[in-house]
Amino acid sequence: MDNRCIGVFDSGLGGLTCVKEIMKILPEENIVYFGDTGRVPYGTRSAEILVKYTISDIRFLKEFDPKLIVIACGTASTTALDIVKGKFDVNIMGVVAPSAHTAAASTKNGKIGVIGTSRSINSGKYEQAIKAVNGDIEVYSKACPMFVPLVENGYLDSKVTYMIAEEYLEPLIKAGVDTVILGCTHYPLIKKVIGDIVGESVTLIDSGKEVARHIRSSIEAGEVEAAARHNGNRFFISDKVESFQTAAEMFLDTKINEPIEKIDIEKYML
Amino acid sequence: MDNRCIGVFDSGLGGLTCVKEIMKILPEENIVYFGDTGRVPYGTRSAEILVKYTISDIRFLKEFDPKLIVIACGTASTTALDIVKGKFDVNIMGVVAPSAHTAAASTKNGKIGVIGTSRSINSGKYEQAIKAVNGDIEVYSKACPMFVPLVENGYLDSKVTYMIAEEYLEPLIKAGVDTVILGCTHYPLIKKVIGDIVGESVTLIDSGKEVARHIRSSIEAGEVEAAARHNGNRFFISDKVESFQTAAEMFLDTKINEPIEKIDIEKYML
Repeated sequence: MDNRCIGVFDSGLGGLTCVKEIMKILPEENIVYFGDTGRVPYGTRSAEILVKYTISDIRFLKEFDPKLIVIACGTASTTALDIVKGKFDVNIMGVVAPSAHTAAASTKNGKIGVIGTSRSINSGKYEQAIKAVNGDIEVYSKACPMFVPLVENGYLDSKVTYMIAEEYLEPLIKAGVDTVILGCTHYPLIKKVIGDIVGESVTLIDSGKEVARHIRSSIEAGEVEAAARHNGNRFFISDKVESFQTAAEMFLDTKINEPIEKIDIEKYML
Repeated sequence: MDNRCIGVFDSGLGGLTCVKEIMKILPEENIVYFGDTGRVPYGTRSAEILVKYTISDIRFLKEFDPKLIVIACGTASTTALDIVKGKFDVNIMGVVAPSAHTAAASTKNGKIGVIGTSRSINSGKYEQAIKAVNGDIEVYSKACPMFVPLVENGYLDSKVTYMIAEEYLEPLIKAGVDTVILGCTHYPLIKKVIGDIVGESVTLIDSGKEVARHIRSSIEAGEVEAAARHNGNRFFISDKVESFQTAAEMFLDTKINEPIEKIDIEKYML
């Protein structure tokens, strides 16, 4: 047994959809979450800046001696994971590989759609990961830059979200995909809208959920040791604490009883 | 005559609407623009972080020995101007006072609406500045957090922008305002949408334009010396240069012939 924590980070709120899934299927685990609310959003940053941010986020989480660090952010996973992986003596995983594997296993017609931030889509990493599993699969990618602000502003089920989602998803529907990867951890909050538009026959892959499942498989396979008992989670952010709690509870779909702690992430910049 | 530059900065693109107006009415002036694209948006940051960012932006512009620095960002003007003003030996102005004065002079029925980012609206600074001119004026403020992402993603004249704007502007219309301050330098790009919704009888005050007029008045009053001749403008940003130019030209409404230069703004943090 290894009671050390699982460190999870994201640009802000999105990664909490991943935390939610870990809490659900691995309730014994102790999670230390860092939401980089002081530097959100990551989706529009350059690769250079994102790598710097990711390194500082990992340096912060390393202070808790985690047994595993999860980059619960589509953009940081697609852009920085490969670069930072070899730089730290800790097990680091992103959201791309687990969802690419599940999508490749799930598609019947060999046509997968991927949606994410502009940076994630431009990186081509999801496509690459799917092709690595099965080179015959056709991948249709579409950047959805308005989804993060819509979610962050609470437009979860509104007419405008449907209109913008229809515009974004049209090419994927036309291409005939039967599986869509929600390649940004914000998107599970508008899963209903996306599902209504693409239709019931299309399988939606929630990248946070796939990460949680992947951790469970790693535990079952003995690659990661399970925690003996749940001692509590911790939540850190890099900007004001006010207003975070309400939004965070919407993403987690549960109350946060622990105090939310503010840190100075600039201190962890190299 | 004082050929030194006018330094102008904003979180990214919005301040260019102010640059556009300065170029139009004061074509001799030499402008050094800094768009903090690496740390955009400012509208959702805490006051503490915003003050730090503003100080670094000013420290960068100070290197060009400006005769005047314009905070062409509603959020930084409302939140940081008072704090930074005394800290530097350079003339610094924001966007609040000029538009508050014009709005107070323009209203006939004594009811002014102010729209801006959540942080600008919560600061109460526009209301304070209007009341300082005329305490009898009633001010109705409304945060419009979706306007910046809509503008940045090119939804300038679309159905969704109309729908969201209708939602935001409804309380101002109900209150019967006859003047609305566009308290964020992004908003002039959706001035048509806003104008269509509030109606022709309502005067819209463009904060960037008011700043340009204020500089012209200061020159006429001898408080700021005019430039003898235009030697050229310079444009700096803090993240990738690609994709900036096209967007910037949309904001400026003209071509940028100068090379756009990238700087490391972190170096200017205290």
